[in-house]
Amino acid sequence: MSHKLPQTGDMNPNDFRQYGHQIVDWIADYLTHPEQYPVLSRSQPGEIKSQLPATPPAQPETMDRILADFENILLPGVTHWNHPSFFAYFGITGSMPGILGEMLMAALNVNAMLWKTSPAATELEDVALDWLRQMLGLPAGLDGVIMDTASISSMIAIAAAREALDLDVRRQGLAGRADLPRLRLYVSDQTHSSVEKGAITLGLGQENVVKIPSNAEFQMQVDALETAVQSDIAAGYRPFFVCATVGTTSTTSIDPVSEIAAIAQKHNLWLHVDGAYGGMAAIVPEMRGVLDGAEEADSIVVNPHKWLFTPIDLSVFYTRHPGVVKRAFSLVPDYLRTAEGDAAAVKNLMDYGVQLGRRFRALKLWMVIRTYGQDGLAARLREHIRLGQQFANWVDAASNFERLAPTPFSTVCFRACPDSVPETALNELNEQLMTAVNETGEIYLSHTNLSGKFTLRLAIGNIRTAERHVAHAWALLQETLTGLQQP
Amino acid sequence: MSHKLPQTGDMNPNDFRQYGHQIVDWIADYLTHPEQYPVLSRSQPGEIKSQLPATPPAQPETMDRILADFENILLPGVTHWNHPSFFAYFGITGSMPGILGEMLMAALNVNAMLWKTSPAATELEDVALDWLRQMLGLPAGLDGVIMDTASISSMIAIAAAREALDLDVRRQGLAGRADLPRLRLYVSDQTHSSVEKGAITLGLGQENVVKIPSNAEFQMQVDALETAVQSDIAAGYRPFFVCATVGTTSTTSIDPVSEIAAIAQKHNLWLHVDGAYGGMAAIVPEMRGVLDGAEEADSIVVNPHKWLFTPIDLSVFYTRHPGVVKRAFSLVPDYLRTAEGDAAAVKNLMDYGVQLGRRFRALKLWMVIRTYGQDGLAARLREHIRLGQQFANWVDAASNFERLAPTPFSTVCFRACPDSVPETALNELNEQLMTAVNETGEIYLSHTNLSGKFTLRLAIGNIRTAERHVAHAWALLQETLTGLQQP
Repeated sequence: MSHKLPQTGDMNPNDFRQYGHQIVDWIADYLTHPEQYPVLSRSQPGEIKSQLPATPPAQPETMDRILADFENILLPGVTHWNHPSFFAYFGITGSMPGILGEMLMAALNVNAMLWKTSPAATELEDVALDWLRQMLGLPAGLDGVIMDTASISSMIAIAAAREALDLDVRRQGLAGRADLPRLRLYVSDQTHSSVEKGAITLGLGQENVVKIPSNAEFQMQVDALETAVQSDIAAGYRPFFVCATVGTTSTTSIDPVSEIAAIAQKHNLWLHVDGAYGGMAAIVPEMRGVLDGAEEADSIVVNPHKWLFTPIDLSVFYTRHPGVVKRAFSLVPDYLRTAEGDAAAVKNLMDYGVQLGRRFRALKLWMVIRTYGQDGLAARLREHIRLGQQFANWVDAASNFERLAPTPFSTVCFRACPDSVPETALNELNEQLMTAVNETGEIYLSHTNLSGKFTLRLAIGNIRTAERHVAHAWALLQETLTGLQQP
Repeated sequence: MSHKLPQTGDMNPNDFRQYGHQIVDWIADYLTHPEQYPVLSRSQPGEIKSQLPATPPAQPETMDRILADFENILLPGVTHWNHPSFFAYFGITGSMPGILGEMLMAALNVNAMLWKTSPAATELEDVALDWLRQMLGLPAGLDGVIMDTASISSMIAIAAAREALDLDVRRQGLAGRADLPRLRLYVSDQTHSSVEKGAITLGLGQENVVKIPSNAEFQMQVDALETAVQSDIAAGYRPFFVCATVGTTSTTSIDPVSEIAAIAQKHNLWLHVDGAYGGMAAIVPEMRGVLDGAEEADSIVVNPHKWLFTPIDLSVFYTRHPGVVKRAFSLVPDYLRTAEGDAAAVKNLMDYGVQLGRRFRALKLWMVIRTYGQDGLAARLREHIRLGQQFANWVDAASNFERLAPTPFSTVCFRACPDSVPETALNELNEQLMTAVNETGEIYLSHTNLSGKFTLRLAIGNIRTAERHVAHAWALLQETLTGLQQP
């Protein structure tokens, strides 16, 4: 088949058809047997780069050659998030209907900045996010907008809270103003780093992000929050924002959202609930309680790309105050004015955040929800939680391992602690254990640090993870530990 | 074919194969005949939404049904950015190799936050962005990072400039500090609104974004910049950032980058060059001069998703100061530490911006560059510029139309100005003309405001736009104008 291109214009449609089919078949095979690859890439730093030409091709190259390089050069440098034994970080996982959605999104290639530039993109976003809101059991009156990542969603939340202060920050900014106090945000010592990064970005300062200590179960200590807010007020600071997390990154602990909401209300703080991972569990009817208190939130983030089988990226930002978000971000130059926008007859998504350009992301979420159905999605999350609990039970029953945190969802924090090894050597042992099991290419775990303890994390979120994968991980950990302890 | 799903796990791979092929064929047909649809959606506000169920499905639905709804309900609500007569805004356009790239990205679904979580994603990004740098004729020593949009790239630039001030902003923030002056940024009255939005977001304040007037050709007036900086210094402000644009949004004017660079150097301002649209023209050898002066920049943004046939989203941020960007944004909690990162042996992309999650975007850019080759891409941009110049000549030769700005690239600013209509009625006439031609569904133009004049914009950037489309637009404008003038 010819790869000759017309002088102007795109690839030959017949070539597209041929290679498109070939790639679809490759994807079907790949997702049927992701275990054929080592889960963690064995590539060394610089190894991929050294195999690629340092200068761009002047002339067209064939898709055959490009796809051959994809398989031979790039694929060995891929860490396989699709591998059912990817247990690191949070195992974000796409799904086949999500991939079909991405294909259509890429083909349409709309920029949904304005309602007018693709009404369906804006209106489907409203519909799909309202479906998700209902599935999560969140109250009506929450307005949803799709963001790319939870990092951006949380930054938008802080920016909206800053705007809500009515300190004329949008116009005057924060610098060089004698009338402004230092503005303080409250998180726990377990809150995701992106909230702190958002505060840094917004010019609020890392030292104004107050990290409230968590209790033995890694939940924010509400008394300490109250004390910190009061003492900051006494010291002349202006507290304005608190983040409660449902499913923290290290241990997936759940902050006492209702109690935090009461303090937020008392002191007029914007309450942001970070449910990027754990919030999604509320889709499972018997888990709905994990979002208790979130109905009081000013804003909430949940990530369908994390635990709802939607390809990255798709984060959902809900707020009860869309007007405040718009006040913080809307800026409409002449060339982006439309009759519908001027008449406030439509929602123009560019008004709700930093980015002007935006993909038709609602499409993939809508296709995922419809393909699985609410009950089907709940069944999959329920199974992940069951597998996580089972692994936790195995750890608890073993004399040479211990759990280091409660397991409210599907992520288990644990470590090896054989009697023969003193406490002072356990961190090194567990780091060796993690490195050793990851080097097998059979599983991939990541770690965290809990009260100074090097902690292994096994996070189950992949749509293809079944009991046998979790059982194999457990067997491999035991076997590898035994190997490490032999002289 | 069955749509029955296993209790846990993804769609049936055979179903994926079938529907994947079907969607590939649909895309091939769609991109062969995008003219079969009205370019601007005729959907009315709320029309799409009203056809979609208000509650999510409890049970799985078939892909047949989902795809039928896509075609019957959603597609009429799509504005077709792929239509060769989409001349509005900037006609961003994907391409078939870019779509194939998106398919592979969606399938792999890696989060390239760390080198380790997919070495190929990080290393291919370095390679592809260095290819692009060479194609643009930019000097070595520029480090590139892929961002989602130019809005984010420009915000990152301002944040890096703020960090470079060494005012301890990262730690202390901007608010409530007696030691900080107001920080001032300089743009022209033609600079894209996203720079202003970035400054608002970063807490710098809209009133500290100083809009330097542009000259009759819509280029920043360098003398006015010098005067503004000096008078701000005298008034106790701290100037720190200036944005020069290569291809402004309204008229695609080119700021005098070298002269602005000299002022930036004199006053120690961070020079950011926004070449999101126009910078890409430097790929055409005889257009390379458009980036003259950009070699002096501290940061540069160019958007392959705008005018390099790469599906949205993919913006490229280049900087000579990657260390400063890292200082502004790097924040590494325990759970994201890796041995390679600690040893500074690799680049972890999460360190260079706000977002933690990031897609394997380099793949699509690499596939586009290889499929067309540097010469092939230059040929396509050259043809767009030729078509733009031709349309400009038609306008210039017509007695009832006039051009309202120079045409350095492929975007023409013009209006109807028939002798019979007084100046005071021209804005209304041109707005009517735009609405009327857009309502035909045959072409889509947007507008801007130039010195109070309602200005039509015809922007050529679509890979499928050929001379006949531009000629038809011109004929349609003439014909419609005649119709509007008849009593």
